[in-house]
Amino acid sequence: MKDFTFYNPTKIIFGENKTEKVGNYLRGNKTLLMYGGGSIKKNGIYDKVINSLKLNNINYVEKGGVKPNPILSFVRETINFAKSEKIDAILAVGGGSVIDSAKAIAAGYYYENDVWDFFVNKAKIEKALPIYVVLTLSATASEMNSGAVITNEDTKQKFNINADSLFPTVSILDPVNTYTVPNNQVANGCVDAMIHLLEGYFTKNYENTPIQDGFVEVLLRTIMFETKEILKNPIDYDARANFMWSATLALNGLTTAGIGNYGFPNHMIGHSLSAIYDIAHAHSLSIVFPAWLKYNFDNKKERIVQLGKAVFNESDAEATINKIISFFKSIGVPTNLPDANIDKKDIPMIAENAVALAKKWQLNDYTVEVIAKILQLAV
Amino acid sequence: MKDFTFYNPTKIIFGENKTEKVGNYLRGNKTLLMYGGGSIKKNGIYDKVINSLKLNNINYVEKGGVKPNPILSFVRETINFAKSEKIDAILAVGGGSVIDSAKAIAAGYYYENDVWDFFVNKAKIEKALPIYVVLTLSATASEMNSGAVITNEDTKQKFNINADSLFPTVSILDPVNTYTVPNNQVANGCVDAMIHLLEGYFTKNYENTPIQDGFVEVLLRTIMFETKEILKNPIDYDARANFMWSATLALNGLTTAGIGNYGFPNHMIGHSLSAIYDIAHAHSLSIVFPAWLKYNFDNKKERIVQLGKAVFNESDAEATINKIISFFKSIGVPTNLPDANIDKKDIPMIAENAVALAKKWQLNDYTVEVIAKILQLAV
Repeated sequence: MKDFTFYNPTKIIFGENKTEKVGNYLRGNKTLLMYGGGSIKKNGIYDKVINSLKLNNINYVEKGGVKPNPILSFVRETINFAKSEKIDAILAVGGGSVIDSAKAIAAGYYYENDVWDFFVNKAKIEKALPIYVVLTLSATASEMNSGAVITNEDTKQKFNINADSLFPTVSILDPVNTYTVPNNQVANGCVDAMIHLLEGYFTKNYENTPIQDGFVEVLLRTIMFETKEILKNPIDYDARANFMWSATLALNGLTTAGIGNYGFPNHMIGHSLSAIYDIAHAHSLSIVFPAWLKYNFDNKKERIVQLGKAVFNESDAEATINKIISFFKSIGVPTNLPDANIDKKDIPMIAENAVALAKKWQLNDYTVEVIAKILQLAV
Repeated sequence: MKDFTFYNPTKIIFGENKTEKVGNYLRGNKTLLMYGGGSIKKNGIYDKVINSLKLNNINYVEKGGVKPNPILSFVRETINFAKSEKIDAILAVGGGSVIDSAKAIAAGYYYENDVWDFFVNKAKIEKALPIYVVLTLSATASEMNSGAVITNEDTKQKFNINADSLFPTVSILDPVNTYTVPNNQVANGCVDAMIHLLEGYFTKNYENTPIQDGFVEVLLRTIMFETKEILKNPIDYDARANFMWSATLALNGLTTAGIGNYGFPNHMIGHSLSAIYDIAHAHSLSIVFPAWLKYNFDNKKERIVQLGKAVFNESDAEATINKIISFFKSIGVPTNLPDANIDKKDIPMIAENAVALAKKWQLNDYTVEVIAKILQLAV
């Protein structure tokens, strides 16, 4: 085991009909209620939240309209709004996009200059507003971690921040809230959570990590199995619940504590695809990951076999990669650039874009040439 | 999945040479430094801690002498000492006995009446001193949970407390600190951690829990494998490290979140054996658990088989129980009452003692007769 610090103070309130209780957990005089495109107004979640806020005499102002791949201009605008309203807490009702936006706003609230400074390491997050979450989409684990990813539309950069003060104080995980998540978004959440697990599993620099390997394998099996169950029956409570908790555990620090240095090379390349083409984060990953595995086939062969045996009932490395691709196809996500209508002529341009993030994340082996070679394997 | 709340704010600092840094994490003007029988003065841990406290200008007073199966009289005495010294933090350097004593003292410090009130549900813990830990013995997971167990020597009751304010603020897990733990205590820690996992695994009242089952199985495999490695080579860093982190995760709330109601019937009976005969907690468990499994053979058969397949490479239920017993024997712990020189004539008396805790823990099926029948299977 390698040295690590594990710290995760987020309180998880998990279960049916917990959304109605959100007001019991909120502390503060004036809360900024944030959400996305308004689906919560159709499926009843909005009403449940508002009722609970009113029941608990919590003042609030609203800001809806967060987009998938959330953008910096919205964050900046909302920071100004939040400052003018003198809020003292944020309640994010949504998935990763809403929570990540809330985190950026929570950090920017106490900062004099432009919030993007945090993303380009020009400033350090010292303080943030308390964040509360009602999760409506399982995928990013932002509900139980201290990170956030925002896209700067001007510079076409999808960058991240991380700070202890960004852990949500309380996150409500009510599986019923995900009953109306459509199949394509279920599949995206599945890919997202899987790749979170697989990045650490394949890039860690320490061998002897049976606990972390075992946990990753358990979570992968659960996520893949329950995704199929949800696609068959969207109101299967246990399937939604097991999927929800697995996705949260997939990026809350548990599976990476002790594995040493590891990286997110698939995210690094994927973020460029999302920033340039605005394709779903998960699609960028389901395209990049099989290519990345093929590129690393020789030096990762043993681990691919371990994954095959533990998760895919398969002891051959090449067949394991094919089973990953088959699984992705079976849930309807793209597995190469043509599937997403991305022309291979764009590869040099994508690689140029990605290498900026490679530098930020100190993925020093990933030159423009290497990234281009990986993307060639996705043609 | 059943509804649950998961909350665990303890910060874990894991790794080699982290003990020397303990002073960096402590906050407070006057710390009570607690430890056990003084082994830390022989193996150098005491000096490392003291140096770090001095380097960080931290005032402290000392209280050594905590015994295994820690006792109430010591806790009461130390609360008085702590009050007279006006301390504002406790640093526990030791294993579960020292940490549990520190927790009871931390809670009693702010309470006007007798601390035992908390144990018999006469009072609720509202506030506690911050607790810091340098772990020297892996077994109880007290370093990352909010519980503590203390024995009242007068009433022969081994009872527990639990409160959010009892989570240690920071726990330092330095595997090197366990290099000098002798083989018999390694075996005890192994049993302790195993039974923590198996109690939930076998008594949970909800079936569909693949994440929690999977995590338990991973941790059991790791604990059993690494125990054997440690017994062969006590300074095997990875074995000590994997064992240490597994034992912590075995009772930090992770494996039981979502499994519904579950109980600690083996601990309930075992605590009586420890309270009456002062035998090691782990020995009480390695004696009771095989008997408890046999008593529950018919209604737990499927789960025994699941355990057998996942952990013991065994698909027969009876053979799985035998393999558990064989494993216990192989690491040198008793597996029945005669092994611990306990006369079967004492069974009615033990059962009478245990039933008080059965009532406290609402294990309502465990009448004196049932407990006696289980103990008969340990003869």
